[in-house]
Amino acid sequence: MSLAVTPRSEDYSRWYTDVVQKAELADYSPVKGCMVIRPNGYAIWENIQRTLDRMIKETGHRNAYFPLFIPESFMHKEAEHVEGFAPECAVVTHAGGKKLEEPLVVRPTSETIMHAMFAKWIMSYRDLPLLLNQWANVVRWEMRTRLFLRTTEFLWQEGHTAHETAEEAQEETLRMLEVYRTVCEDTLAIPVLIGPKTDAEKFAGAVRTYTLEAMMQDRKALQAGTSHNLGQNFAKAFEIQFQDREGKMQFVWQTSWGMTTRLVGAVVMVHGDDKGLVLPPRLAPTQVVIVPIYSSEADAARVKEFAAGVEASLRGRVTYEIDWRDQYKPGWKYADWEQKGVPLRIEIGPRDVEKGHVMLARRDGGPKQAVPVDALAERVPAVLEEIQASLYRRALEFREANTFDVDDRARFEEILQGEGGFVRARWCGRAECEASVKERTKATIRVIPLGAPDDPGPCAACGTHGAGPRVIWARAY
Amino acid sequence: MSLAVTPRSEDYSRWYTDVVQKAELADYSPVKGCMVIRPNGYAIWENIQRTLDRMIKETGHRNAYFPLFIPESFMHKEAEHVEGFAPECAVVTHAGGKKLEEPLVVRPTSETIMHAMFAKWIMSYRDLPLLLNQWANVVRWEMRTRLFLRTTEFLWQEGHTAHETAEEAQEETLRMLEVYRTVCEDTLAIPVLIGPKTDAEKFAGAVRTYTLEAMMQDRKALQAGTSHNLGQNFAKAFEIQFQDREGKMQFVWQTSWGMTTRLVGAVVMVHGDDKGLVLPPRLAPTQVVIVPIYSSEADAARVKEFAAGVEASLRGRVTYEIDWRDQYKPGWKYADWEQKGVPLRIEIGPRDVEKGHVMLARRDGGPKQAVPVDALAERVPAVLEEIQASLYRRALEFREANTFDVDDRARFEEILQGEGGFVRARWCGRAECEASVKERTKATIRVIPLGAPDDPGPCAACGTHGAGPRVIWARAY
Repeated sequence: MSLAVTPRSEDYSRWYTDVVQKAELADYSPVKGCMVIRPNGYAIWENIQRTLDRMIKETGHRNAYFPLFIPESFMHKEAEHVEGFAPECAVVTHAGGKKLEEPLVVRPTSETIMHAMFAKWIMSYRDLPLLLNQWANVVRWEMRTRLFLRTTEFLWQEGHTAHETAEEAQEETLRMLEVYRTVCEDTLAIPVLIGPKTDAEKFAGAVRTYTLEAMMQDRKALQAGTSHNLGQNFAKAFEIQFQDREGKMQFVWQTSWGMTTRLVGAVVMVHGDDKGLVLPPRLAPTQVVIVPIYSSEADAARVKEFAAGVEASLRGRVTYEIDWRDQYKPGWKYADWEQKGVPLRIEIGPRDVEKGHVMLARRDGGPKQAVPVDALAERVPAVLEEIQASLYRRALEFREANTFDVDDRARFEEILQGEGGFVRARWCGRAECEASVKERTKATIRVIPLGAPDDPGPCAACGTHGAGPRVIWARAY
Repeated sequence: MSLAVTPRSEDYSRWYTDVVQKAELADYSPVKGCMVIRPNGYAIWENIQRTLDRMIKETGHRNAYFPLFIPESFMHKEAEHVEGFAPECAVVTHAGGKKLEEPLVVRPTSETIMHAMFAKWIMSYRDLPLLLNQWANVVRWEMRTRLFLRTTEFLWQEGHTAHETAEEAQEETLRMLEVYRTVCEDTLAIPVLIGPKTDAEKFAGAVRTYTLEAMMQDRKALQAGTSHNLGQNFAKAFEIQFQDREGKMQFVWQTSWGMTTRLVGAVVMVHGDDKGLVLPPRLAPTQVVIVPIYSSEADAARVKEFAAGVEASLRGRVTYEIDWRDQYKPGWKYADWEQKGVPLRIEIGPRDVEKGHVMLARRDGGPKQAVPVDALAERVPAVLEEIQASLYRRALEFREANTFDVDDRARFEEILQGEGGFVRARWCGRAECEASVKERTKATIRVIPLGAPDDPGPCAACGTHGAGPRVIWARAY
């Protein structure tokens, strides 16, 4: 641990970078826009991977691995796709000491290279559905980057599927959206609004993009994942045809969906505080830290013996570390583990040993409590679940307190240009309207929430009559 | 399943490719030298990862992730390193629509990019040892590629460590060699010879490279992993210094070590037979396949009910699938699962139901046996362990039968130019001698086996007196 982090109220952006670096989640690399994910950050990503990978497999998908390089010509086969991604591509022009005949693009996403193989593998309806997932690195050349949130190279999983019918593809798109929602809310303790994007914001090549939008503590939105219904766009570009049950040739219906290492940044921004990182217990690589307190050698021996019993109560139930570092005082250790986001601290001093209990200190600011050592095995997992729930609740309350139903044009712009937040407002459905609001306020339509009722009335941006549900406007990462 | 694989005796190389493709482990991609790892192959890699990752963590290492791209100038900092790798590099010259100021190399290995960060993180002996591991893709531009064994892009883990003393670095190098040996022998059932490489064969930039060498069924050697003692070569190139316990500045001592997706190819080549893939049970994603046999609907119902009991005995004990595909006959299914390498097949027909037993058919050719259904829970895991042991034993016997102690110069060349095998022979220690043998026979010194006694005498290649232990010569993948 070193100096304290910049307070959020002083400079939120600086606070974020401080927390990421002081918790040793990531560091800047010598390669422009690329970061190094340090062990503390990578362990969080591994926990996200473990949960997500299990759910991806439980829904019938299998992992595979496709090449990093994509022939440049492949990118051009789907018109919208190349338009969207070509400006962000890194291109290999030389290899093995020679100029390549055809440049190779470093994958920004793998639809094109995967679909070239799908065309080879899919012959008949019996080969469908084809349900694949890939864990990989991808590269999108970004001008302005931020640790985890936007980096030139990032890690992700990308699901790619092919189906017999449009209905099945749509079901798959929503199924994976729901898997993502579960991961965000149940594991990351981040509440999300889910639903389609507008056409202006959809994935390049998709028929429809569904998104999960979360609110950060600066009231900006962050897209936590996307699930795309690709229709037959890529199937036609890559000629992925199958013989259907009636013996006729048909194009497949496809989806793709992805979640990335930016989720680690979202966790920092949603739960962190002025002391540093705050990790939801279900995500935390270390859920509990035990800090022994002693000043004499006799005390140390007694505390040590007592701590062994505490460890025995925790083993196999929660992940924990015990901090025996002699060169630091307890107060320094508390601050160090707080900065690193460990959800629960157990303090054991000589007086605790006498009383046969320990002190529990919650990282979410809940009350400090004495717990008898023989109640720990049951109590610690329960407290961790309480912390998990309280972090989620706090994030939800924050989002609700900063979400505004607005009909009035002046107020609409006032919020979007000012303090920010989610503005729930009517929209006429026109792309011109989105573009002009974006130009004036930097805010976009983040999501058309699923299940929201139609609410006809004048568009908050332009006054034209709109027919659909209210949409969420916000500035975003 | 489709047609049978080419017999090994007819064309070993063709047999290998047939097995890989028919078991759907991998496929050729449209990108020269890059392959697609299909779900059946990737599941094997995931099992290798799971075992290896656990052991890497148990030995105190933590996972991290470093950038894919390396500034070209970094590659030039260590003289031997750039000489070894520059000819194989793929280079990004353009990104985001512009020419880059400095070209970026796609990592062929990550020493240089990692060590640039080590120099930033390591200040004092308190920061040591630094024990990191990375799971990643790397690219080495190869002219002649083969699925899994040699591909332009491959997946691997690469460990990178820094230590206070030369002794600790050497201990680490050997510790990870031992971890690798355990994975090869205990999980993959592949016996390996371990020990240092000669200077001619060591990693570009290492002081000493240790290797694990396995024998394939065509009697050629395959390097299954390497562990390098880097000494202070990179520390000096990247100025990685620390304040030691006496307050003096010192360069760190380093290691690196890696294992790759080529292990999947090794498993195919060591255990496969003319029916297709043979997977060691501890590695197999599906350990058991249940094939129900019935011709009437009444039989189907009885077999189905019985199979439910069989499944109940296996659940949680082994991984299994049950093959209810109606369009295929049992014999076709047997061949299909044999081609895919599933270690154990359980057959259940109406007569088995009557007798209350099932038939077990071992993929390693062991005897077919009837087992009462109430003995399955115990018997199936035991049979799988027997198969695991028998595959290892068979591979070891094959290697021993094809390893020759040779002193005679004519016989030495006869073996290396002919049928092949491991030739255990004296060596004078001169690089010229290695080079001339390689030119005449394509064989190299694969390993100087650890623990082998000194055996002074005339070098089998040139007749000059040699002092060290006998070394292993062979042609290799």
